[in-house]
Amino acid sequence: MRAEIITIGDELLIGQVVDTNSAWMAEKLNECGIELYQITSVHDDRDHIVAALNEAFSRVDIVLTTGGLGPTKDDITKHVLCEYFGSHLIEDTRVRAHIHKLYADRPDVLNRLTATQWLVPECADILENRVGSAPLMIFHKGNQLLACMPGVPYEMKIGMEEQILPYIESKVESRKSKAIIHKTLQVTGIPESSLAILLEEYEASMPHTLHLAYLPKDGIIRLRLSSYGGLSESEMETWFDRLKGLVSDYLIAETDEPLEVIVGQLLKSRAQTIATAESCTGGKLASLLNKHAGSSAFYYGSVISYDNSVKEHLLGVPAELIKAHGVVSEEVVRVMAESVRAQIGTDYAIATSGIAGPSGGSAEKPVGTVWIAWATPEGTTAECFHLGKLREQVTDRACMKALVGLLKILKN
Amino acid sequence: MRAEIITIGDELLIGQVVDTNSAWMAEKLNECGIELYQITSVHDDRDHIVAALNEAFSRVDIVLTTGGLGPTKDDITKHVLCEYFGSHLIEDTRVRAHIHKLYADRPDVLNRLTATQWLVPECADILENRVGSAPLMIFHKGNQLLACMPGVPYEMKIGMEEQILPYIESKVESRKSKAIIHKTLQVTGIPESSLAILLEEYEASMPHTLHLAYLPKDGIIRLRLSSYGGLSESEMETWFDRLKGLVSDYLIAETDEPLEVIVGQLLKSRAQTIATAESCTGGKLASLLNKHAGSSAFYYGSVISYDNSVKEHLLGVPAELIKAHGVVSEEVVRVMAESVRAQIGTDYAIATSGIAGPSGGSAEKPVGTVWIAWATPEGTTAECFHLGKLREQVTDRACMKALVGLLKILKN
Repeated sequence: MRAEIITIGDELLIGQVVDTNSAWMAEKLNECGIELYQITSVHDDRDHIVAALNEAFSRVDIVLTTGGLGPTKDDITKHVLCEYFGSHLIEDTRVRAHIHKLYADRPDVLNRLTATQWLVPECADILENRVGSAPLMIFHKGNQLLACMPGVPYEMKIGMEEQILPYIESKVESRKSKAIIHKTLQVTGIPESSLAILLEEYEASMPHTLHLAYLPKDGIIRLRLSSYGGLSESEMETWFDRLKGLVSDYLIAETDEPLEVIVGQLLKSRAQTIATAESCTGGKLASLLNKHAGSSAFYYGSVISYDNSVKEHLLGVPAELIKAHGVVSEEVVRVMAESVRAQIGTDYAIATSGIAGPSGGSAEKPVGTVWIAWATPEGTTAECFHLGKLREQVTDRACMKALVGLLKILKN
Repeated sequence: MRAEIITIGDELLIGQVVDTNSAWMAEKLNECGIELYQITSVHDDRDHIVAALNEAFSRVDIVLTTGGLGPTKDDITKHVLCEYFGSHLIEDTRVRAHIHKLYADRPDVLNRLTATQWLVPECADILENRVGSAPLMIFHKGNQLLACMPGVPYEMKIGMEEQILPYIESKVESRKSKAIIHKTLQVTGIPESSLAILLEEYEASMPHTLHLAYLPKDGIIRLRLSSYGGLSESEMETWFDRLKGLVSDYLIAETDEPLEVIVGQLLKSRAQTIATAESCTGGKLASLLNKHAGSSAFYYGSVISYDNSVKEHLLGVPAELIKAHGVVSEEVVRVMAESVRAQIGTDYAIATSGIAGPSGGSAEKPVGTVWIAWATPEGTTAECFHLGKLREQVTDRACMKALVGLLKILKN
């Protein structure tokens, strides 16, 4: 069983908005045994939407649309779908009651434009959008169906999880694909091409329903093994174990979870804690560590010392040390890590100091030079990296290096 | 002149990777007067890629592909394009020399798989990928052209800016669309539907080549006025000025630039500085403030006080104050802001304390409650917000509220 996502909105096609919805939806569909075949982004334009619908229905069983459901004039998705399925708009009293409840304490929102939100195509099955005013709609075309959702990410996510997916599962249970299984591991410290040579024999021996993909990012390569129906869970497990064995020298994670989640789980399971002292990463590492629910159990705090004065006053880095070695140096980054660990009183601390660019580089320390230190109950280690020339790349990679280093320490 | 982006990669369709490339490319294309008509994401599959190419060439003048150019077996884009354009692979000595130079200090990368990267379709124009091993390729089909780029974001960006766009501009100069002009302003403090009612007359009076779009996100609505060829720059300016006048009560920015950039420019122009003390936002606000080049001129540092002990020891928030009012309170957040401002010695400081969820809420202070304080040379103000139920939404919106508050202070 195949699906296609059609994202509707000029904002996607002029670069004003990044489509983060589709990746999230893809994962959820896969979990339900539905293959996402294609993603298509089109303008808020009647003819364009109709053409995309016709093409999608020629390819897949389920079409999911996001976007174009606001009350303003530029949003036309509901009207185009109404016409496409030969229906007309009627008032839905349940939706009206829901919107009144939603905006009970904001009477200014209950204006005549908001009132158009409870008009729905008569032919559609209407599902509740618990957190917004645009109802979710399901349309049928023979055996095919179309699910229409808002583009606002949290409205789409709640609607998809609570309404659309259970609806689809109840209707298509008997027509689902054979189990789609993805298993991912993460490696570091080997070039992608060398890894591929290492795995050549393994790949050549794989059955044709099994597929291996290489996804390099920020110095880490995710290796994804995908089975599209041919293998049982235990056969898949055997292939995955063989893969793990082959890359064991470079293995840092046996799941696809972000490194900060893996680090967090390890710390939590040991009731240990962490703090950071960040210069070039500027809070990005802290932000990663506390991004996920439950992080307060292991993440205590950070000092972001972007300016040298903060390194001196809040982290107690001696001005002479900075003068003697430069702020991007092993000496300074060690003191930063040890100082923040002592002050915040955590088991571990990570410090970063580097030149993110575009300016600030020198012949000796070019843009991309980053020193990272890990202070632990057993002492402090530090390492120097060269992480490229682009500001965002340098800071993203520095965060990954910091987490990989911590992971290695935690696992030893 | 119209373009279509085809992004190639299973990782996009199983939700492992978010496509951030397309939005960036869309913006660049628009700047060159090329309309991005559609974005299509397809699998690493020969038939799927060929079908997408045929459809795209039936719709647009320029096709841009990203992805599938790695040296590993799962990457097939080059081979499919070679077949599609009826060509065969030949060795390119310039690419070979470039790759040898690129990996001069990493001989382990120069293996036989990497060597396949200097095989290119004979019919293609080859452009240099300065930062990677996969060359950029241009294919011609009558008057139409296809530009093929790697999917790695920074390789794509550098290649597109330095090679692909200048190439396209030199070839298609005479066939470019009339000027596409987008002008965006940002408002806050008014519901989208009320804004649309306020602008009803304005919208009704617009010529048909002018288009107004509403883009709400994190409590801010971006209003984008787009002209597709009918209007001169000065006519567009007049329409934009009228729009600004109508929304003046809610206006916070007259450009599409992120708020942190606008705040940074204001601070820099006044030689003023800022620090943050963050609890619930956990470094996200710091990270935003130092995200862009040149931030060290105005951003000095932060204390991320996720745990109460950090609030007490590093920010000097009295334990009794936390006990009396709770950590999410006006009293605590004011002390946090004033303390970090004094300690780091900046002109301004922002502090956040809130319940990002999913746990930690109470009847009195439900998940989503966030206190924000702004400490300034003229004194401290604080405000309480209710920012929803989802962790990421709460912290993203808190950062926006913090920046909007600062912007208002800086403008008064």
